[in-house]
Amino acid sequence: MTQKYVIGIDLGGTFIKGGVVSKRGDIIFRAKKESAAKEGHFQPVANMFDVIEDLSQKMGKDPEAIGFGIPGAIFSEKGIVTKSPHFPHWIDFDLQASLKEKTNIPFVIDNDANAAALGEGWVGAGKGYKHFCCMTLGTGIGGGILLNGLVWRGMTGMAGEVGHIIVEPEGLPCPCGGRGCMERYSSATGIVDMARKKFNDGNDSKQLRELADDNPDKITSELLCDLAKKGDHLSKTIFKEMGKYLGIGFADLINILNLEMIIIGGGVLPAWEFFIEEAVSQMKLRTYKIPGESVQIVKARCGNDAGLLGAAYMGWQSR
Amino acid sequence: MTQKYVIGIDLGGTFIKGGVVSKRGDIIFRAKKESAAKEGHFQPVANMFDVIEDLSQKMGKDPEAIGFGIPGAIFSEKGIVTKSPHFPHWIDFDLQASLKEKTNIPFVIDNDANAAALGEGWVGAGKGYKHFCCMTLGTGIGGGILLNGLVWRGMTGMAGEVGHIIVEPEGLPCPCGGRGCMERYSSATGIVDMARKKFNDGNDSKQLRELADDNPDKITSELLCDLAKKGDHLSKTIFKEMGKYLGIGFADLINILNLEMIIIGGGVLPAWEFFIEEAVSQMKLRTYKIPGESVQIVKARCGNDAGLLGAAYMGWQSR
Repeated sequence: MTQKYVIGIDLGGTFIKGGVVSKRGDIIFRAKKESAAKEGHFQPVANMFDVIEDLSQKMGKDPEAIGFGIPGAIFSEKGIVTKSPHFPHWIDFDLQASLKEKTNIPFVIDNDANAAALGEGWVGAGKGYKHFCCMTLGTGIGGGILLNGLVWRGMTGMAGEVGHIIVEPEGLPCPCGGRGCMERYSSATGIVDMARKKFNDGNDSKQLRELADDNPDKITSELLCDLAKKGDHLSKTIFKEMGKYLGIGFADLINILNLEMIIIGGGVLPAWEFFIEEAVSQMKLRTYKIPGESVQIVKARCGNDAGLLGAAYMGWQSR
Repeated sequence: MTQKYVIGIDLGGTFIKGGVVSKRGDIIFRAKKESAAKEGHFQPVANMFDVIEDLSQKMGKDPEAIGFGIPGAIFSEKGIVTKSPHFPHWIDFDLQASLKEKTNIPFVIDNDANAAALGEGWVGAGKGYKHFCCMTLGTGIGGGILLNGLVWRGMTGMAGEVGHIIVEPEGLPCPCGGRGCMERYSSATGIVDMARKKFNDGNDSKQLRELADDNPDKITSELLCDLAKKGDHLSKTIFKEMGKYLGIGFADLINILNLEMIIIGGGVLPAWEFFIEEAVSQMKLRTYKIPGESVQIVKARCGNDAGLLGAAYMGWQSR
């Protein structure tokens, strides 16, 4: 094949997902390998290059560029991983230097949440929009903010930490060191914690107790979503509570930035119908009329490929 | 005189303040007149032009440009005043058209909080910085955000409403329609309300009761600041509480935008020593280490001239 292409790499805590991506944003080939997150500084790098090698062989030539979406606190300008919870060896790790030892192909590194926002902006829900925030509601809450079509990184590359918007000043402690961060209420983890608390307090539903085999450890956000779909009152209450806090986070974003759009993705997305009404209603209550009514709150469209696509987009942009 | 100059106009609810401003940011002449805020659509415009006329006569020639800093919700691109609390007749008012009827001199209109941020960035505390928020703690809390040295206005020109960052989700009702906005706790009004509540609850200090002549309506933020300087415990507690909420707002700004600097101005500034420690400590507690320690929290330096200087800066930039 003579087609020009780039490779997008989405590094997760468990798997590396790679893809050959065309200039239009089509994923032509895919490859996957374990992240080897705990196996030292260099094993994850080696495994990413196995994925790149695999994809390059399928294409019969080298890519034009490679984009890397990396979880954690990334100083993207210098390619330094300050800290990345799933990769305990990566503390102030010079990923850029490590990658340069492996390849002469041009590459770009950014935070995975920024990559996801770029992916949604390129071929997803944010296509045609310039000022938006893409929030990924998963184990935590990731955020990428685009202003004038460019990722807003801030002074030290750590902007977009929307999961740590404070929604309850004396609320639940957060691993970040603070309290009452949105992530503690509106992520999958937050929802499950709310349910476990109700379970332990004896406020649970019969359905929940049965499905979880009487064991609060078996509660997941998927299980709560399934129950809500079956009409379970307790699960619905939990998603409404989650939506309230999400709406407070939306309001802060709108009051500060007056965005065009907020895009919601991540594992909690299937429960959209149970939280979005309360979230939008709280947001409108807590913002001025024009900015509150102008902003569009929409579902992400790229699913699990947002990060890979955004990484590839960074690769295309770097050329 | 043959010197080139611009005129900056800072429109307040009570007074119009105007100044002849040099290219370096020196205020060469000043003029002042009543705003006539309640006297119809056009009287405030006429009075602003009296100030401009007065200054132009002093200079013996027309200015190169005029910058207007206008309170309220301003759609600066089109020069429309959507709403301005002190100017009840100005609802969706086409200020640009009104000004064009009066003059052929080029002019620029922006929100007064954005103007203040530009003034501080030009010749004040923000000089040399690109990404900062300037907060004015007065009757309410005004905010102007500069990113890459430019005012961030957002989709509908209403970004920077930092007074409505939510710091207490079920807190005090706010005129914006929401609850628990930072403005309800960390503005002069918020501080006075806290003191009145303590007064009415019987938690007041003997000193406060004496100074206020036993009348809670006589409590002002200046009075509370004076008392705190004399060591009054209750007043100090109030400023600490105010600082806590201010710090939560700081944290939200840093988590979202990873700014270089937050500049604090306004009528509450004399009480700086009584609230800043708590505010910075709350901010650090609720942000990641690098962005929380990188941001500088500083006092505004332009005092009451920030808006006038920023308006003049807009004038110079428009040429």
